[in-house]
Parts: sequence; structure tokens; C-alpha cells
Amino acid sequence: MEETPEKLERLNVPALDEILGKAFKVLDDGFVRLVDYMGSDSSIVQAARVSYGKGTKKIHEDRGLIRYLIRHRHSTPFEMCELKLHVRVPMDTWRQWIRHRMANVNEYSTRYSVAIDSSQTTSESEWRLQSGGNRQGSEGYFPIEQGRLLSEAEKKFHDDAVKLYQDRLELGVAREQARKDLPLSTYTEAYWKVDLHNLLHFLALRMDDHAQLEIRNFAKTIGNEIVSKWCPLAWEAFLDYRVNASGLTRIEKEIITAFNKQGKEKAIQKAIEFGLLNEDLTQAKKSRERDELEEKFEDLGFTIPWK
Amino acid sequence: MEETPEKLERLNVPALDEILGKAFKVLDDGFVRLVDYMGSDSSIVQAARVSYGKGTKKIHEDRGLIRYLIRHRHSTPFEMCELKLHVRVPMDTWRQWIRHRMANVNEYSTRYSVAIDSSQTTSESEWRLQSGGNRQGSEGYFPIEQGRLLSEAEKKFHDDAVKLYQDRLELGVAREQARKDLPLSTYTEAYWKVDLHNLLHFLALRMDDHAQLEIRNFAKTIGNEIVSKWCPLAWEAFLDYRVNASGLTRIEKEIITAFNKQGKEKAIQKAIEFGLLNEDLTQAKKSRERDELEEKFEDLGFTIPWK
Amino acid sequence: MEETPEKLERLNVPALDEILGKAFKVLDDGFVRLVDYMGSDSSIVQAARVSYGKGTKKIHEDRGLIRYLIRHRHSTPFEMCELKLHVRVPMDTWRQWIRHRMANVNEYSTRYSVAIDSSQTTSESEWRLQSGGNRQGSEGYFPIEQGRLLSEAEKKFHDDAVKLYQDRLELGVAREQARKDLPLSTYTEAYWKVDLHNLLHFLALRMDDHAQLEIRNFAKTIGNEIVSKWCPLAWEAFLDYRVNASGLTRIEKEIITAFNKQGKEKAIQKAIEFGLLNEDLTQAKKSRERDELEEKFEDLGFTIPWK
Amino acid sequence: MEETPEKLERLNVPALDEILGKAFKVLDDGFVRLVDYMGSDSSIVQAARVSYGKGTKKIHEDRGLIRYLIRHRHSTPFEMCELKLHVRVPMDTWRQWIRHRMANVNEYSTRYSVAIDSSQTTSESEWRLQSGGNRQGSEGYFPIEQGRLLSEAEKKFHDDAVKLYQDRLELGVAREQARKDLPLSTYTEAYWKVDLHNLLHFLALRMDDHAQLEIRNFAKTIGNEIVSKWCPLAWEAFLDYRVNASGLTRIEKEIITAFNKQGKEKAIQKAIEFGLLNEDLTQAKKSRERDELEEKFEDLGFTIPWK
Repeated sequence: MEETPEKLERLNVPALDEILGKAFKVLDDGFVRLVDYMGSDSSIVQAARVSYGKGTKKIHEDRGLIRYLIRHRHSTPFEMCELKLHVRVPMDTWRQWIRHRMANVNEYSTRYSVAIDSSQTTSESEWRLQSGGNRQGSEGYFPIEQGRLLSEAEKKFHDDAVKLYQDRLELGVAREQARKDLPLSTYTEAYWKVDLHNLLHFLALRMDDHAQLEIRNFAKTIGNEIVSKWCPLAWEAFLDYRVNASGLTRIEKEIITAFNKQGKEKAIQKAIEFGLLNEDLTQAKKSRERDELEEKFEDLGFTIPWK
Repeated sequence: MEETPEKLERLNVPALDEILGKAFKVLDDGFVRLVDYMGSDSSIVQAARVSYGKGTKKIHEDRGLIRYLIRHRHSTPFEMCELKLHVRVPMDTWRQWIRHRMANVNEYSTRYSVAIDSSQTTSESEWRLQSGGNRQGSEGYFPIEQGRLLSEAEKKFHDDAVKLYQDRLELGVAREQARKDLPLSTYTEAYWKVDLHNLLHFLALRMDDHAQLEIRNFAKTIGNEIVSKWCPLAWEAFLDYRVNASGLTRIEKEIITAFNKQGKEKAIQKAIEFGLLNEDLTQAKKSRERDELEEKFEDLGFTIPWK
Repeated sequence: MEETPEKLERLNVPALDEILGKAFKVLDDGFVRLVDYMGSDSSIVQAARVSYGKGTKKIHEDRGLIRYLIRHRHSTPFEMCELKLHVRVPMDTWRQWIRHRMANVNEYSTRYSVAIDSSQTTSESEWRLQSGGNRQGSEGYFPIEQGRLLSEAEKKFHDDAVKLYQDRLELGVAREQARKDLPLSTYTEAYWKVDLHNLLHFLALRMDDHAQLEIRNFAKTIGNEIVSKWCPLAWEAFLDYRVNASGLTRIEKEIITAFNKQGKEKAIQKAIEFGLLNEDLTQAKKSRERDELEEKFEDLGFTIPWK
Repeated sequence: MEETPEKLERLNVPALDEILGKAFKVLDDGFVRLVDYMGSDSSIVQAARVSYGKGTKKIHEDRGLIRYLIRHRHSTPFEMCELKLHVRVPMDTWRQWIRHRMANVNEYSTRYSVAIDSSQTTSESEWRLQSGGNRQGSEGYFPIEQGRLLSEAEKKFHDDAVKLYQDRLELGVAREQARKDLPLSTYTEAYWKVDLHNLLHFLALRMDDHAQLEIRNFAKTIGNEIVSKWCPLAWEAFLDYRVNASGLTRIEKEIITAFNKQGKEKAIQKAIEFGLLNEDLTQAKKSRERDELEEKFEDLGFTIPWK
């Protein structure tokens, strides 16, 4: 580690400096706003080279090294970059957000101050139907006429909630108690600081189709508007090796390998052994694992041996 | 470390086994319920003796060692004990609770299932007035007649909120979206698992008078009903050295020492130097630090040099 | 969540109770020893069902649910299980072990007590050659005769190190300073407590072929001797979906899909686009990513389009 | 929170920019070197004001607010500042350092690269005697003549260790195995990134007299050379309220209060009740707690009631 220059400049990322302070709007009244950052793609490389010492020097160029690190799930060099955001989020979304423990948070206090006078409202075209297949998801939208009624009821309820809260404050009820019936749709604000490794983990989970639409919108804004400019090489590798990658389980691997090396019959036999099919080849039994396998095979253009 | 017996029994704490599963009621419809635990006072001692090796054996008896560890803020031996609770808490309180990151959590999902049909209600005698001095606190209660009106308005609002939520579900709105206007008073449930070190930190902050009444009630129930039975020696030391202890700042120490060793004039001079008093001895300037010092001195029975 | 029985029994895993305290030997003088545990497969299920509420009841049986959770990387239910081990490990291995931050540790203190009088010795058949391909690995063993010389030199050095340490102690050098030249091969001991989620992460990294042999032996002992008995369903799913699974990157998926749906030429074109091959189909350029892809394809029995 | 300017500048601390990259020497061949930072005193204030909202604006000026936050152990605003250091540390010291889990680390890998060819050497005047009273400390120095002999033995051992390591490498032993007998005095290097809250915790423990001299020197260098310039207001408050403050236990408070309010006899009676003295006022029983109390009372200029 000969390179320890006695004079350093701070690392700046000009594309980020341009958006410092800019509020990227999310939902009807939320935002994500970059406050500060530490590091960049080159800090990831720098940290990796401390770990690996002279060994790596010049062998890989930066892009190759960063891609290698993400492909092989090396996490510590990505912890060397840090991002600080100012966000405005409905409390309902914040309940999911705050579950990511490896971050630093200062949230607006409604004990100390009067709550933010804004709730997330749902326009007539945004009301979503309960998904049948996925117990925790939604699927499709209500027709506008029904949506209008839902939005009107929501509006009335928000007005009532604001009035209840203000009445309490005017009477002198303590803020910490007056807030007890604020709807979860009430906006809150926070400073949120996180390292790139934990941020990518957050984004992998929250940009995913299974994440709720609201937090997904925040995650996509953070990813597309900020991280993509901050660390473009890490971002590209993250998309290739995490977001748009998928896994093959031991069972899927063995079925594919059997099919390729020994033929269809052997692959079917494997599937029976693994309990994915009945002995008589009917699929009568419900198997979420088989459903996932078949979907994956179809996406990849494979013949499903038993179909 | 000669003592590594080849056969161990699991450590049981009979006083805890008796309350396993018992719901200790908190607020109108919340509870704290012990689900499982690992370790006890003797695990703290065992861990400390691994760290300190043969050196400590028999020198201290257990109580002395545990008290020493807490007095000197040794934290790792307390991490060797683990507690798992099942709690039912208003979401408003949960927002504070979840800020303690060093714990494991599985919370009831209102995306997956219909929300718990219960909100924390406030009886007519429980409405609190905003504190004047402490921006984030409350002070005293409303008279019953006013409380009654507040409770009635609350009741009506809760009924409206339940109706809004149920109407949405009946229409087929996705659960993840229908819940967006649940009031913060809605109860949630969670499994919460934490080690004793982090639990004591939680209790020190949340049993404190500055904590909001609601979470304070939960914290006191956990402390008094569960921790006191689980690790009685650690609990006693925690009360003596954390909860009922206080600090002396460098400034307070110097003023006390000056007073004791050099007399009143010198102590006053120190206070002026530190900017707590004006040169002419008037206290005209506002100083929260001086206020805190005077309060502490009075509690301890000291003469305040400048009064 | 109607099921909150007012009386619980602690969860015991009889197969684990039998090995409580038993030292599983690792390396020449190390061990792993189970001290205590909290939870089991059924605690994972219990926690998942708190999260998902009534929704999941009886839909999945336990095995299916646990497999689903691991396949989809749900981590929090696995945090509800906790393990406490007593380990004896060379300091060199401990340097790697301790990098896993999400665990509780009490290590034997060589400030407080005299260092453990044992170093990891290498028998004549255990000396490993530096790997050529993998900068951080080893590959193959020295012949016995060379190994014998290496072991003799090691023995002499260990004796010198012990003597140096003891001479210092006898002269009255402070233990904290006398220890400064202990070889990294010196054994240390610790209590190590970790939840199942973080333990599986540790095992996934440290049971891997890329992990150093020494820590790999510890990891395999923990996995095979303890976790497999503690949570057999989680262990089986972990092997199927983590240890013996592999990933397909976006690039690999697109090449496979192109090959299956559009034929060999299209797959080759994709590989050129991704920069894995030169335009003229020679593979002249060095590409670690292409090497990994080819290896994966061969394992799965695929034809490599450009070969 | 009206102040969300659409354009921000990054926060720079000119006094820190001047020392970016400068290696502050510690021990014979170690150093601490600032690589990057995020935030400053004003970021602490900014974060606190997000939490407290409009409420705090202009009420406190910055210094008062920061002092208040440290006095009352508010930790989250300090997490908004982040520091990245490059350090060179003996492995023996690193073993203590790495126990602070709330930091990000990339350490030089001796699997990947040849170990750093430098060991911490002890000059003839630096050999310390084992403390009698404090089992884990040292006390006083060896006379030069004895020190010289110790240093000579150390030198010889270091030479032997280097030779053993190099012989192994030359023979082709894998680096990961060749390193197994490196002395703990061997230097390692790392990038270490930590937030200000966790850094102050580290410094409070490691600048303390009970910390081992070697890590204390590193901690003092970080504190005095870097943190004091980075966040001077936080640093001043930290010294006043943590480093140079002390605690009064419940027992000490009650004895002081009894003495001040009810007189000497009552104070003695309290001490007997608490088990610090025998009934007959002899102090015959050994009590570390009483020793600590007496020392504290003497420092503060109090009369010890029973002396």
C-alpha cells in the first residue's frame, strides 16, 4: 500500500452536486431530496484495493472490479459510500421504510411540533383492487366512477381528521396526545442517511414488484435519479446482477441438468423425487415451488419436461 | 478456562417460567407477554468470566461482579441474555418503539391481513394538557367535563375510521391501500426480541419521566413484571447505577470542588467563568444549564453559592 | 391473532439438549460447544404467522412455509431463533470470524489473564500450496518431506514464542504488553451468540469453497453438527436455496433465452453486445465474467453457443 | 419545515480540508489519516431541527443546542456526521478496535497480498510493569537496562518471525497459511468509516485511562487532531459532559443528601444500610464500591462522613 499521498482533495461527483437540494417529487406531496454524500465509484475501488492490497493494482480496471464485487456479493467496499437524504413520506410508507435498521434517522417530531398539515390523497384513478393470487398485493384499478366515490369519502375523512386534531390543539391537549388519531396517510419528514451497501439492499427489496406501490415509487426515484448519477458503475452492476438477475435452486439446477444431460424422462423423475409432481405425472398437488419453477422455465424459453 | 463440562443443562428461571404466556395488560387494550428467554443473571457472570478468565474466579461473588459491570458500563456480558416478547401496542407508540434498532421484530402485517379491530381509546379522565416548560411533554389533566367531550369526539372519529376502512374492504380495495387512513391509535402486534444490554438501554430511555406516558407504561411493565424476575441482580444494579443515578458535568464538578475546597467566592467565580452567571452576579441571562445545575444541587441538599 | 394462550411452555429441542455442553473438536485443539439456544423451526413459523396474521393459518404447513421464506429471502422470522456457542479458535481465524458484526461476543482477555497456552500446529501433511488462479486461495498440499521441515520450523518458532512470552511475564512485564508478539496461531476462546438469520449468512460465506480451510471447518461443524439438529427444516431449505443454489445474471438469462427462443446466432450476438466476445467470435479478450458463464453453462449441461 | 432550499452547497470544513491525507503518526510506525468526511457541527444542528421542527428555531443558538443534545444523550443528530480514516495499527491493537461493531471496515488482506513488513517495536524505555491493583492494566516502566534486554529479545524474535514467514512464501506455502504465525505486533492497515455518535462512544472508551496505552494513543490522535477540528462545538461538549464528567450512583446521592440535609450520623447510617460499612463502623469488609465512593468524595472536596 505505497500510495498514501500526504495531500488529498475531497471526492466530488459533479452530476450529484448539480442536484444537491433539489426535491424530486413522489406521490402527491412527498419528495426525496439529496442533502449530502460521501464517496463515489472510485471510493469503492479504493476500498477494495486496500483490502486486496497491491495484488489487484492495474489487473482489473475499475468497472471490471466493481462488477466482480457485486457479482460475488462483496459488501464492505460499498459501505464506504454514504448518502444523506431529506424525505417527505406518508407515515404508512414510513412504517415500512423504518424497518431497514442499518441507517441513521432524524424524523420530524409531532411531540415537539405541530404535525405536518398534509395527508397523502388518492385521486379517483388510483384506487387499487385486492389481488386474488397474492394475498399482500393489489391488482388493477377501480373504474373512475367508483374511484370518485372513494376519493370523496377519503377527502371528507381527512377534513374530519384535521379538524379533530386542530380542535384538540386549540383546547390545549398536549401535542403528544392530540396526534394519536392522525391517519397513517399523514406526511412525515426525515433525514435518512445510509451507506451504499445497505441502500442497494433497500432498493433491491423496495424497487421490486412485490413492494407496495408507494414505497416502490420512492425507491425508484432514489435509484434512478440519485444513485444512477452518484455511482454509475455500481448502479449498472446492481441492475445486471441483482435487480434483473434470478436464482436457480438446487432443485431447478438438477432438473435442468438432468434434462440437458440425460433427457426428459430423467428430468421428470427428478421432479417426482423432489415432490413437485405426483407419481402418475398429474400435477394435481398444489405446489408453489413447482409454479415458480415453471414460470422461470417459461421465461428462459425452456421446454417444461412434463408439459 | 478449565471449566468446560461436557454436559450442560439449559438454564431455567423458575420465576419466569411461571409467567410464560401471561399477558400483562397495558393501556386499555394493549399487553406485553413473555414468549421465551435465554440466560439469566448467572449467564452474565459466566460471560464475564470467559472474558476475564481465571483471574476473576471466586474473587467477586456474582452480585458484586454484576454491580461492577453495570457501574462501569461493561455491556457485552449483558448481551448474552435474550428476551422474546409478544406485544400489542398502538401504532403511535410503536413508531417510538421501533426506533430502537438493535432488536428483532416481526410485526403483524396489514397488507397481508385485515387490521386489528381495536384502537386505543382515551377515557374522560386521561386527557393531558400541553406542558408549558417542556415543549415535548404534557402536564396535568383536563377536568372531567372537558374530557368527556374529547372522549366523545374520539369515539365518533374511531367509529368513522372503522367504517371507512370496512367500506373500502367490502368494495374490494386492496388491504395495503385501504389501511392508509387508519388512525395512529390503531393497535398493532409484534414479536420483539432483544438482548438484555439493549433492553436496559430501551428501559432507561423509556421508563424515564421524559418519555411519553404510553410507552412509559409499556417500559415499566416490562421492567417491573419481567426483567426484575428474570435477572434480579442486574435489575437491582440497573436501578442503582442508571435509573436512579445522575451525572455531574465537568462544570458542576469544578463548582462543587471549588466550593468545598476554596469557598463560596471561588465557586461563584467559576460559575461566571463558565458563563452561567453574569459578572454582576445577576442571573438575568437565561441558561438551561444553570437551571439544571441548581435543580441538581437542591436535590442533593447543597447550598447554591450565588443564592 | 386470536391464539394468545395464557400459559406457555418453553420450546425445547430434545436433539439439541443432548449435545448441550459437548465440545465438537475442530483443527488440532479448537472446538465448538453449544451453550444455549432459543427457539426452533416452530418459532420461525410462529413469527411468520404473527407477521402474516390469520391469512396464513393452515394454508401452508410448516415445511412449505419455511421453504417459502428462505426461497424468497424473508429474513426476520429467522432472527427469532438464537444460538450461543463457546468456541476455541486460533486468533488468525478469529480475525475473520469477528468481522461478522451482527453477533454478541465475550472473548477471553489476555490483558486480564495469561494467554491460553496452545497454538494451532500444522502437521506435516497439512501444508498447502499457494493457488495460482485464485490469488486468495490455496491449492494442493506439499509432499510429506517438505511438510515435515515446515512443521519442524513451526514447532521451533512456537517454542520460542512461548518462551519469550513467559520470560516477559516472569520479569513482570504487564500482560497487556507481554502478549504483543503472540503468534496469530495462538488459540483464543469466546462466547458467541447470534440469531439464525445472521448465522445462516455466516455459514453461507464461511462454508463456501472460497473461505479459508480453517474457518470453513468451524462453519461446517456448526452447520452439520448443530444447526441441522436445531432447525432441520430451515437447514434443509438453506442447503437447497442458498448453499446449493446459484444465480443467473441478467446477461446469462438473456443469452439462454435468446438461444432457446431464437437460436444460436442470436445468443452469440447477445454475447458480443455484452462485451463477452470479440466481434470476430474469437474469445481473445480476457473476461472473468465469460469464464464464469461458461463454467455455469457446462455444469448445467448447456451447449455453449460459441464453442 | 419551510426551509427546503432547492439548491444546496456541500458542507465543507476548511480546517479539515487542510489535513485531508495527512498521516498523523502514532506509535513507532502507525498512523491515522483522514480520507473523507460528511457533515460538521452545523449538520448536527440541522438534523436536530428536523426532529424538533419549527419549535426550536432561533430559541437556542447552535452551541447551546449541541451542548444540550450531548448533556441529555440525544444520539441521532450525531449520527448525521460521518468520518473515513485510513489507519495503520498493530494487529494486537486492531483486535480491540474491531470490537466496535458500528463502523464500516476494509482491512488489508494477508490472504490476498503479502503481509505488511513492519512490526510494532518497543524501545528500551517503553516496557511497562504489570499493575498490582488493576488486573488488566500496567503501572510504571522498567529501568532502561532491563528494557534494553527486553527490546533485544523482541528484535531477535521479530527477525525470526519475518524469516519464518518469508521462508514459507519462498517455498510456495499459500499466503493464507504462511501468515498463521505472524506476531500480533505486525502492522495492518484499514479504511475505517464511522458516524460521529459511534466515534464519540469509541473515543470515550478508548481515550480513558483504563484503555490500553496503544489504542489510547490512536484514540487521542483521532480526537485531538481530527474531531476537534471537524466539529469543535460537539468536541467541547463531549469533553465537558462525557470525558470530564462523572456519575453519582443512587447510593452516593443518598449519602450526600443525608449528609447535607440530616448530618453526618444519618449519612453513616445510610452507608451501613447499603452494606458499605460494618455496623460497628469499621470498614473491615472489602468493598470496591466504597473505595470508588471515597475516591470520588475526596476529589470533590467532601468530608467522608466515616473518616
